[in-house]
Amino acid sequence: MPTIGFEQHIAEVAARVEAGLEALLSERPEPGEIARPARLLAAMRHATLGGGKRLRPALLTAVARLFGAEGEEPLRAALAVECVHGYSLVHDDLPAMDDDDLRRGRPTVHRAFDEATAILAGDALQALAFATLADPATDPDPAVRAELVLVLARAAGPGGMAGGQMLDLAAEGRFREDGPERLGEAEVLRLQAMKTGALIEASAEMGAILGRAGGGDRAAIAAYARALGAAFQIADDLLDAEGAADAVGKATGKDAAAGKATLVGMLGVGGARARLDALTATALEALGRFGPEAEPLRGAARFVAAREH
Amino acid sequence: MPTIGFEQHIAEVAARVEAGLEALLSERPEPGEIARPARLLAAMRHATLGGGKRLRPALLTAVARLFGAEGEEPLRAALAVECVHGYSLVHDDLPAMDDDDLRRGRPTVHRAFDEATAILAGDALQALAFATLADPATDPDPAVRAELVLVLARAAGPGGMAGGQMLDLAAEGRFREDGPERLGEAEVLRLQAMKTGALIEASAEMGAILGRAGGGDRAAIAAYARALGAAFQIADDLLDAEGAADAVGKATGKDAAAGKATLVGMLGVGGARARLDALTATALEALGRFGPEAEPLRGAARFVAAREH
Repeated sequence: MPTIGFEQHIAEVAARVEAGLEALLSERPEPGEIARPARLLAAMRHATLGGGKRLRPALLTAVARLFGAEGEEPLRAALAVECVHGYSLVHDDLPAMDDDDLRRGRPTVHRAFDEATAILAGDALQALAFATLADPATDPDPAVRAELVLVLARAAGPGGMAGGQMLDLAAEGRFREDGPERLGEAEVLRLQAMKTGALIEASAEMGAILGRAGGGDRAAIAAYARALGAAFQIADDLLDAEGAADAVGKATGKDAAAGKATLVGMLGVGGARARLDALTATALEALGRFGPEAEPLRGAARFVAAREH
Repeated sequence: MPTIGFEQHIAEVAARVEAGLEALLSERPEPGEIARPARLLAAMRHATLGGGKRLRPALLTAVARLFGAEGEEPLRAALAVECVHGYSLVHDDLPAMDDDDLRRGRPTVHRAFDEATAILAGDALQALAFATLADPATDPDPAVRAELVLVLARAAGPGGMAGGQMLDLAAEGRFREDGPERLGEAEVLRLQAMKTGALIEASAEMGAILGRAGGGDRAAIAAYARALGAAFQIADDLLDAEGAADAVGKATGKDAAAGKATLVGMLGVGGARARLDALTATALEALGRFGPEAEPLRGAARFVAAREH
């Protein structure tokens, strides 16, 4: 298995994810389904096709590859992760949530369609993710499939993404009983670990599960992914604080306007950049037990730290 | 294993489901979770505790019992089904969807909390359902767990519940490009098979999976549940057309006001009652291969036909 850089890997994966999602979001019902309404599918396609860095699929497949798992099976698991990621973006953009009109330079799903369709498209993408993971085509071993479902569902649920978005809304002072309290650094880190870190970590863990990684290797990958996820969020906050809307593809400066608690707001731009560098170093250290075959994962850490959109 | 009637069974199951959901919706995070925000959990509890007939859990556990599976494992699968059912009610009630203020005689989740919390509570309930099914406590055999996930996810997704709700909104003439077309009987049956039938059928199928039922028995259970699901929807439509709001616990007469296409509207009350009787007979016929041990399932068919709330 030749070692490739992360840029080459993510470009290859992005093309395969696009084709895979096209196939997954076909109008033809799967066994056990009755019919797939055209408008719902169009909204699901709008939510997932034609954009996105595909960082999570690239991470999942790079970890799987490190442990010798390649081909269609890790890709299917990566499609499931991308369905969950896409669903969360659609729901986060809703008027009742972050009320965003623009995502990846295009109208958000509730703007391109309508609110009810956006809610249902998100719901259906989440269900489709778990149906995809549980399908025998994702791995011949049902124990692997069940573990993939468990890891992704925990990352998506009340103790992961959904819970993180809840904390994020509370941090804006939305709910009278909580009051507009200022979060401390520990609370912000926890919020971000749930809202964005959990799915990034789950992606890496799913790659390790598909590759039948041993306990020590799995723990190292988890430590790597935890640092990577935290670095990703800081890079995102730095982009929001510094970036131009046309490079980022969505409105910038929104965090400060919304009074969102971010590490950039707490540590300043310089302090946040230093934290980002430290997290990148932590991620690379966690990969110390692996040789050159982990080069794509090291590239992923540098990619996250350096990204500009 | 003593044969019990369905009324006794559903009462016992309702108590066990309530206790099981209490435990599932504890604030203590599960392994792989970071923290469960209190407001999110409160909304998830509001959505699922303290009400509901628990028809789907009763059906799942009755089918499992028919094939010799009893105890905590079928109950856990039933909790997952009830989480999906609860999530779908929360989202269907949202202002952008059916805009309901009342459910089971209490404020809907977005009225008791707020819209964002209701969206997230629904999302988190769906994720929790799949985490519950994939957990080894639900069945020691991972092949069974993976199959349970697949059946439930297909029933919830674009070709099941989410798709059915989409068709229901379209049937109200919501979307300009589709126009306010009148649905024919076949389209109404398909819509209802997706919106409510899919989850009822999945519940029965999951019971058969947990009981390791053979192919012929599974097909019989599927035919039974398909008729039961269709009967359930007609009974629901009859209640909406005829029932008093205080007995039903939610606003009645809404279907006609919303211009919803129902079989009661097409066949009249008498025609719909005759159809309900025919479906009940079909459900009972499908159980012909089973002896007195299937008595609770026969009772379920009579229960659905006769229910008044």
